[in-house]
Amino acid sequence: MHSYLIGSEFVKKISLLGATGSIGTQTLDVIQSHPEQFTLVAMSFGSNIKLGIEIISKFQPSFVAVKDKETYETLKLHFSSNVKFGYGDNALIEAAIYDGVDCLVNAVVGSVGLVPTLKAIENNITIAIANKETLVTAGHLVTEYAAKHNVKLLPVDSEHSAIFQCLQGETDKTIDRLIVTASGGSFRDKSREELQDVTVKEALNHPNWSMGAKITIDSATMMNKGLEVIEAHWLFNMPYHKIDVLLHKESIIHSLVEFQDRSIKAQLGTPDMRGPIQYALTYPDRLPLEKSKRLELWEIGKLHFEKADFKRYKCLQYAYESGKIGGTMPTVLNAANEEAVAAFLKGEIKFLQIEDCIERALDKHESIAHPGLEQIQEVDQLTRNFVQTLIS
Amino acid sequence: MHSYLIGSEFVKKISLLGATGSIGTQTLDVIQSHPEQFTLVAMSFGSNIKLGIEIISKFQPSFVAVKDKETYETLKLHFSSNVKFGYGDNALIEAAIYDGVDCLVNAVVGSVGLVPTLKAIENNITIAIANKETLVTAGHLVTEYAAKHNVKLLPVDSEHSAIFQCLQGETDKTIDRLIVTASGGSFRDKSREELQDVTVKEALNHPNWSMGAKITIDSATMMNKGLEVIEAHWLFNMPYHKIDVLLHKESIIHSLVEFQDRSIKAQLGTPDMRGPIQYALTYPDRLPLEKSKRLELWEIGKLHFEKADFKRYKCLQYAYESGKIGGTMPTVLNAANEEAVAAFLKGEIKFLQIEDCIERALDKHESIAHPGLEQIQEVDQLTRNFVQTLIS
Repeated sequence: MHSYLIGSEFVKKISLLGATGSIGTQTLDVIQSHPEQFTLVAMSFGSNIKLGIEIISKFQPSFVAVKDKETYETLKLHFSSNVKFGYGDNALIEAAIYDGVDCLVNAVVGSVGLVPTLKAIENNITIAIANKETLVTAGHLVTEYAAKHNVKLLPVDSEHSAIFQCLQGETDKTIDRLIVTASGGSFRDKSREELQDVTVKEALNHPNWSMGAKITIDSATMMNKGLEVIEAHWLFNMPYHKIDVLLHKESIIHSLVEFQDRSIKAQLGTPDMRGPIQYALTYPDRLPLEKSKRLELWEIGKLHFEKADFKRYKCLQYAYESGKIGGTMPTVLNAANEEAVAAFLKGEIKFLQIEDCIERALDKHESIAHPGLEQIQEVDQLTRNFVQTLIS
Repeated sequence: MHSYLIGSEFVKKISLLGATGSIGTQTLDVIQSHPEQFTLVAMSFGSNIKLGIEIISKFQPSFVAVKDKETYETLKLHFSSNVKFGYGDNALIEAAIYDGVDCLVNAVVGSVGLVPTLKAIENNITIAIANKETLVTAGHLVTEYAAKHNVKLLPVDSEHSAIFQCLQGETDKTIDRLIVTASGGSFRDKSREELQDVTVKEALNHPNWSMGAKITIDSATMMNKGLEVIEAHWLFNMPYHKIDVLLHKESIIHSLVEFQDRSIKAQLGTPDMRGPIQYALTYPDRLPLEKSKRLELWEIGKLHFEKADFKRYKCLQYAYESGKIGGTMPTVLNAANEEAVAAFLKGEIKFLQIEDCIERALDKHESIAHPGLEQIQEVDQLTRNFVQTLIS
């Protein structure tokens, strides 16, 4: 419907929000490696102008959204009139639903990704969702909306992509459990006592994955896994007691699904985010993944598994609790976490204070059931303000 | 078409060849646990009269085939006229295609399972195939026949069931590799030197699976895995260079499939053959598996993987070589192995002589391309005769 033909092939028109981030640049790698399949028609980025300009020059999208007017003016001067530019929240929406877009890859960080996602759904655009905060903070809105408009929500996170791949060819009623694997992050071998004085630099040193700063800290606190549990709840319509977290330090098994006959399916691979990104773009088909390394389990030798300890990883417990309460509680969880992690990255609070901020924000909040978009945005803002009072 | 209705449910009519064996009795467990889904209408067994009588009394099949006239006469005396009996090869075929059978579970041991399988295919009966020698010795006939009659061949072996489960929802052209896991059998920690004087009792002590004698010896020589590679070649239409064997001593991952995007899917579970058996019977659906144990990877802690060494496991090498040559060569491989294993179990030859018998039979044979059933049977018999000359 939205696609045009080259020869007999459909070329999928892609809008990419968050093009200069880790998922963004890897999405561009995938697009570039299959020019007969994909084309970038719109994109957004935040503050990395240098990389943004490189990407625009290389991919020649029709529309580019940026955060602020200053960046917008700089780009207007730099490029000819072939590329349209916009800035601010409305430009982000314009990029998401740009004329003819088949698939929106939402790879922005934080809840700023929510409104563009809803608008894209309204426009019947398939969503490849790497922006987990969108589902965490407003999962009911996004999934109800997607169902109403019959729009596919395709996971990009390696864990959710793994589950999604394992579910192909299976029927929902036979699913007994989702098992989300967790590397344990950069501090998995440290006790809570040892976490007292860890530095930002140590926290950013993830053992398996090269990712953005926010998600790397979230891995260290295990909030990343907590957010993924909530995301899995919405993406796969699964109650929380049927979602488990399993520590697996090698990050080779990306997640598993157990069926009612006790058969378990797992999806495995070398840690390479281009895999799940490409699967979301090619789904339900698969294409060769350029310059990829074949996984040989005998080379790895051993895979390790441990039970996830909710006392060691308090954020995991907060996430399950917030998820089960539902309503605006996950919004508070997410907003408090975003503010606290930002403060930690700026050196304003210590590592374990991230948990304290979240706990206090959750304790203070009375959840509003089935909130609308405005209520979510209000709770989000109030939570951020509250966490700021804790920090300063 | 073949099924009758109870209420709104179809009851699948099952014929079970090899009812008193390991797979046979576990198939009966599955049938018994879902009486609203399955009913046993015909069966066969070999020499275990006591267990045979128990099964007939409990399941009340319409027809029972046995090996010899003596057993047949005993059973005729024992049971009323409600149950029909037969003996010999023709009775085995009659059981396989008994009136109204929807699904034939072929769980006999050895190449005796071939003709009943072909006859059942002619009669458009779905085949749940646990009799690997059928596919090894005449894979081209069985698969061509199944394709011609549009009959499903459903694997029952845990490894092939794992691959089959991983392939659900995927397209053939995206499959890059099948990875068949192997426990390594009862002697996996022994060097070739240490294998010189191992006893039958030691060989029958499999670390993970409780199975019949033949297959347990085949596990110890790794011929079982070799036969499974050939079986996988036929079941999944996959060239041999795209089938790997991976040593995995815990037998938790039952096998894996790699796709062209380097994504790997695996199927896991506690070692319990009722899982794959039931999946073949419920496919493409799943049902709860009675009295089954949930797999918790954190309880197991570690999974180990090693490269399969073709020098340590000569039978694996013979299997790949025979498979690649094709024609009647796998028939020779299988027949020589059956005779040699039988001789080992009777204490007539030593463990490592199993390999010698197979090697000499293969060396002697000139493969006939695309053999018919009679040629296969002739080569099978000649090979058995030849191996007997080596033994006595």
